[in-house]
Amino acid sequence: MAELSMNDHKRPFKDYVARHFKWSCSDDGRVATITLNRPEKKNPLTFDSYAELRDLFHNLKYASDVRTIIIRGEGGNFCSGGDVFEIIEPLTKMSMPELLEFTRMTGDLVKTMRRAPQPVIAAIDGFCAGAGAMVALAADFRLGTPETKTAYLFTRVGLAGADMGACGLLPRMIGQGRATELLMTGRVMTAEEGLSWGFFSALHANAELGAEAEKLARNLADGPWFAHTMTKTMLNQEWAMGIEEMVESEAQAQAICMMTGDFRRAFEAFAAKQKPKFEGN
Amino acid sequence: MAELSMNDHKRPFKDYVARHFKWSCSDDGRVATITLNRPEKKNPLTFDSYAELRDLFHNLKYASDVRTIIIRGEGGNFCSGGDVFEIIEPLTKMSMPELLEFTRMTGDLVKTMRRAPQPVIAAIDGFCAGAGAMVALAADFRLGTPETKTAYLFTRVGLAGADMGACGLLPRMIGQGRATELLMTGRVMTAEEGLSWGFFSALHANAELGAEAEKLARNLADGPWFAHTMTKTMLNQEWAMGIEEMVESEAQAQAICMMTGDFRRAFEAFAAKQKPKFEGN
Amino acid sequence: MAELSMNDHKRPFKDYVARHFKWSCSDDGRVATITLNRPEKKNPLTFDSYAELRDLFHNLKYASDVRTIIIRGEGGNFCSGGDVFEIIEPLTKMSMPELLEFTRMTGDLVKTMRRAPQPVIAAIDGFCAGAGAMVALAADFRLGTPETKTAYLFTRVGLAGADMGACGLLPRMIGQGRATELLMTGRVMTAEEGLSWGFFSALHANAELGAEAEKLARNLADGPWFAHTMTKTMLNQEWAMGIEEMVESEAQAQAICMMTGDFRRAFEAFAAKQKPKFEGN
Repeated sequence: MAELSMNDHKRPFKDYVARHFKWSCSDDGRVATITLNRPEKKNPLTFDSYAELRDLFHNLKYASDVRTIIIRGEGGNFCSGGDVFEIIEPLTKMSMPELLEFTRMTGDLVKTMRRAPQPVIAAIDGFCAGAGAMVALAADFRLGTPETKTAYLFTRVGLAGADMGACGLLPRMIGQGRATELLMTGRVMTAEEGLSWGFFSALHANAELGAEAEKLARNLADGPWFAHTMTKTMLNQEWAMGIEEMVESEAQAQAICMMTGDFRRAFEAFAAKQKPKFEGN
Repeated sequence: MAELSMNDHKRPFKDYVARHFKWSCSDDGRVATITLNRPEKKNPLTFDSYAELRDLFHNLKYASDVRTIIIRGEGGNFCSGGDVFEIIEPLTKMSMPELLEFTRMTGDLVKTMRRAPQPVIAAIDGFCAGAGAMVALAADFRLGTPETKTAYLFTRVGLAGADMGACGLLPRMIGQGRATELLMTGRVMTAEEGLSWGFFSALHANAELGAEAEKLARNLADGPWFAHTMTKTMLNQEWAMGIEEMVESEAQAQAICMMTGDFRRAFEAFAAKQKPKFEGN
Repeated sequence: MAELSMNDHKRPFKDYVARHFKWSCSDDGRVATITLNRPEKKNPLTFDSYAELRDLFHNLKYASDVRTIIIRGEGGNFCSGGDVFEIIEPLTKMSMPELLEFTRMTGDLVKTMRRAPQPVIAAIDGFCAGAGAMVALAADFRLGTPETKTAYLFTRVGLAGADMGACGLLPRMIGQGRATELLMTGRVMTAEEGLSWGFFSALHANAELGAEAEKLARNLADGPWFAHTMTKTMLNQEWAMGIEEMVESEAQAQAICMMTGDFRRAFEAFAAKQKPKFEGN
């Protein structure tokens, strides 16, 4: 199912041609946008788009031209999750090894999104459901609109809330009690709840969501990018560590960052009463 | 102290006769209700009721007739915790091995509640204190009323907030800072705080609390029950895992659920534009 | 850099003479106050004050005269973090082993604050930034004012948000999503956000902050102090444990506390309808 070869990270990602979604980059290549683009069905995921997203994020692991990634949906919705006839129906007929191959592939999308060094911003309008809600959860930032409806609705199709890491990831984002409720009932989390529970970092009017996502992405892309990638790495890395181990891990991680030019440049700019220009190295 | 034999899970739980609290079941046996019933003392726990609750939840581990459990208190209060004269006084006179036997028994109640496959709904009115607040915390859902007062008041009797797992469980529910404050000061968490901090999933008027708990319980009991039990299992299981391990664990867990009839039935109902009828297998 | 000898914990901490900040104690010695006192620069940390704080908290590990510690800043601000010319400039010129020595020293401040048995109350007015915001996070209680501005602004100087344990500690306090945003953007968390996210346990008017911190400190110092130290220990200890392990750990921890005189005294006071007088043993 892979659409990308092992060496794809050596070509500029600006030239990447996506098959199962849209891929676009800012002029300088630093901000890339993934647009799920089957708006007539609220942008469902299919076997092909899952696999291509997974491979893309895998290859982005070694990229330094792309520095921030926006993920969004076309036509006023984010993503409706796995398509009923293209994914769910075939799954009802599979053997266990085939099922496990599928659940591992979808899980691998979460893993590759988390392991990609780039901060990922999910710009979430309208419907955000099932696997779509997991893509949102695997992102680093979630921006919504007052109309966004998010649902971990696996239970509605007879499945567990345990999908793609939800039972571990969601409690850390919104608390164990709220996560339990959403995962067991499959009910919609309103945009307002999502904001007050810490799922969304902000809500913007529908018409401004894209511009706000790009502003944040640009900000991160032009910041101390190497340091940002270390922040993301450590946010993953310390998930299940004890306090002593966290602190030692960060002593090492931050000492590495103190060796960067961006750290020196920030000091020099401060001393000269100027704004620092970060180069990401 | 055990009130149940090893084979009690083989008889229908509908016929269970509780000695130290009330036990009742819906006609179909799927929704069971535990009622703490010493209202004159705000439903304290005693050595006997601790042990019976622990044994009951232990045996429920193998039950599939009972699918959701409500736990509530009689007379407008949930539970006042360990009774001062029936529990605390004897504890002040015990040897270390006896004390450890007691703290392990109370801890085992938390363990058996978490390991029981059934979602547990705590319907919490009035006073919810000490071990009672731990029973609430060990439940999967907490419904309150505007009058509910919850207090982890161990410190008021000269003890640590570290009781029955509180120092690990409470921070995941409401955040490390709030948990520290409640556990070190023993102060009351108001119902409003509990709702906004994610301890309660909803507050209902006193007169409606019972009906709301039953509605939720019925909903869960008639849903894809096998999948719900997997959700609960994974919410426990992933507590202290790294991200990679969570995702792989859920790939396996969800692949198991995809083998169930409920998953197939949900697809068939969707295709036929009907509401799915789940059978819990 | 150490300012304290190995045996300093044997002398009364009331007599301690701090060199790089102010140290004062209540008459009975139970409540100690650390005041960062370079108000003209918003109380930055220096190599010397970091090291002295680390050594002080290390020695407090064995102290039982001091029972609660308040940490505050002079002149309307808490702490501006590492001083740009006294810390950041020298760091830009160091070798890797020297850098690691520095990041381990700052990390050790977090470790010693967490390992000190005393509850630590951060009274936070005005600016609370960088390493100052980490000192706040390492405390057990955070009281703010409506004007408090807290920023994990490491990224502003080209560094990672991974500093002194932030990527592990902050998510548990305010949620993974909010922590990611603060650590990657370096933006200010307002006092109102900090309260509603669970960072602050309360906001008080500037003029009352000191008195409120002292009231809380006195309360804790005169409470069942041995039990409080166990609560703090277990809050650290269970950070990355599974549920079964938490419950067993607390069975042991609480059994130890049940052997204290304070537990017996609390029961006796209750039986005599009096307020218990705790002695901390």
